[in-house]
Amino acid sequence: MLTATFERHDLDLAEAFRISRGTRESVEVVVVRVADDEGNTGVGCATPSTRYGETADTVAAVLPDLLAAVERVGDPHALGRIEREMREVVRANPAARAGVSVALHDLAATRLGLPCYRLWGLDPARTPRTSFTVGIDDPGRTAERAAAAVERGHRLLKLKLGTDRDRERVEAVREAVPDARIRVDANEAWTPREAVTKAAWLDDLGVEFVEQPVPADDPAGLQFVYDRAVLPVAADESCRTLADVPALADRADVVNLKLSKCGGVRETRRAVAAARAHGLEVMLGCMVGSAASIAAGCHLAPLLDYVDLDGALLLADGADPYTGLDLSDGRIDLRESGPGTGVDPR
Amino acid sequence: MLTATFERHDLDLAEAFRISRGTRESVEVVVVRVADDEGNTGVGCATPSTRYGETADTVAAVLPDLLAAVERVGDPHALGRIEREMREVVRANPAARAGVSVALHDLAATRLGLPCYRLWGLDPARTPRTSFTVGIDDPGRTAERAAAAVERGHRLLKLKLGTDRDRERVEAVREAVPDARIRVDANEAWTPREAVTKAAWLDDLGVEFVEQPVPADDPAGLQFVYDRAVLPVAADESCRTLADVPALADRADVVNLKLSKCGGVRETRRAVAAARAHGLEVMLGCMVGSAASIAAGCHLAPLLDYVDLDGALLLADGADPYTGLDLSDGRIDLRESGPGTGVDPR
Repeated sequence: MLTATFERHDLDLAEAFRISRGTRESVEVVVVRVADDEGNTGVGCATPSTRYGETADTVAAVLPDLLAAVERVGDPHALGRIEREMREVVRANPAARAGVSVALHDLAATRLGLPCYRLWGLDPARTPRTSFTVGIDDPGRTAERAAAAVERGHRLLKLKLGTDRDRERVEAVREAVPDARIRVDANEAWTPREAVTKAAWLDDLGVEFVEQPVPADDPAGLQFVYDRAVLPVAADESCRTLADVPALADRADVVNLKLSKCGGVRETRRAVAAARAHGLEVMLGCMVGSAASIAAGCHLAPLLDYVDLDGALLLADGADPYTGLDLSDGRIDLRESGPGTGVDPR
Repeated sequence: MLTATFERHDLDLAEAFRISRGTRESVEVVVVRVADDEGNTGVGCATPSTRYGETADTVAAVLPDLLAAVERVGDPHALGRIEREMREVVRANPAARAGVSVALHDLAATRLGLPCYRLWGLDPARTPRTSFTVGIDDPGRTAERAAAAVERGHRLLKLKLGTDRDRERVEAVREAVPDARIRVDANEAWTPREAVTKAAWLDDLGVEFVEQPVPADDPAGLQFVYDRAVLPVAADESCRTLADVPALADRADVVNLKLSKCGGVRETRRAVAAARAHGLEVMLGCMVGSAASIAAGCHLAPLLDYVDLDGALLLADGADPYTGLDLSDGRIDLRESGPGTGVDPR
């Protein structure tokens, strides 16, 4: 027998977080808890994004029906059946389903006494470091934030771009942290021609790749950039689920998958496999949110080429009601994890 | 600490088994056993095929090095690391690696006290029945074999074709077992034009699909058949590993994956996921062999559209040194499985 509940949390950010689409000072997430009748609990967390049509309200609106399906099946190991029954209740809503999926995987592994990565047979020695995201700000403040992150131990920075000061900002960061590895993310803000032009000087500044340069609804534009830009191209908004992967094989070098876009652990692993079949590199990303929304991705990290799982590092001190692996310097040490995802209430 | 050993078995078949490439009266397999120091044992079985360059001798030649990697890692849950170390020892040799992979998955699940399908989160209610394979013989004998299989409870037959009596044989079977569902497998024996012509009368005889009509080294021929034949086309010899899947998306309706072609459980699951990304249907097949080579596939069956796991049903009574799930009437009831794959010495 399983008991499934959820709770909403509004989490303050350490600093206002701006990307090309807008600015936020807090994020609202929905934590899912599934308990068996032997005292074990699994925790997951939905991180809805309006970009994909979800808010904390839509998550809270569908969770009662999704959790009823979980309780009806009543077996945390029956993941395939629960997935199917959840799809029969309501399609789409991937962040809500991802929260449930993570809670179930956490519970199943906890019952078996193994951390998820061990249950999944993954090699902790193959875990990439996470990048740390620096939002949009003026060049001086961007460089200060980048320097502070490097001071804390980070070596991989993801700079959010998409304003008319992109070049000044990257130059300021490069000057402030000459040894850091830098990736940039335009979050759909550029035109295809602009992306190709910017890639040239980004390459000169030692940037590794450009994420989502153009809008997701312009696949021909992405193709244009992929064919002409000197830097590798990563697809994020263009790649939501497994079904999007094949079309990106000749339009991107990297796909950025997220549990909250794919709708759960199993679908994400299927998408990773599909990307591998096409020779695509794979990044696992996240939304800003609680450690309870990040930990499952950490346990999947050995499957991936790039990891951007800094979502809980962007919260204000003490704002997160849950604790997970310590990612404060970008390293993900799965060997430190307890059973399941290793997430506990603070 | 793990101890890994192997043993060769020459298994008599119930009847001589003829396909378009040749006839066999027995099969030689190599059973892999991996034991931990707590009294748990995992069993797998390599079923080499000369079609893919493997024999019992090649398997026995590479297993000492593969099993040394298993013992070196020493942790049955470290499947990713063992996979990688095995690849570093020797590439290719997928049947040998599949035998090791199955033994490790059996051991890991046995240690955790769960049947593999439950550990993998799969729904036993979604398990397709296995087809039963009828080899090449004259029309009368083919029909007798088909009728005997239906008498034992089978409802799905796979007829091996690829001689100049294909039509007479299918007609004889259709007359003998009018209610059975029939699939046919030419094992690369036809020309593309011949396949298109044969598909027309096979369709009239109620055949469901045609497997591997043309040689695997003729992708344009497969494309020709896929574009023109009235029946769906399944790719077997044309689809060995994950990397083959994308190219088949527009050349086949179904891919027939096998543990012994993919090289193990994890790679097979990745290939299933890649096939799903392309909207391909997926069959899981097998080579003729011990129940120890079949059971892991049975536990994967809920992931699949079609299952052809009759390899141990073709052995002579008492020839198999291992027992697994009872598939004698084609049904696969995973709920009957013990921990792991449920394989035990006879």
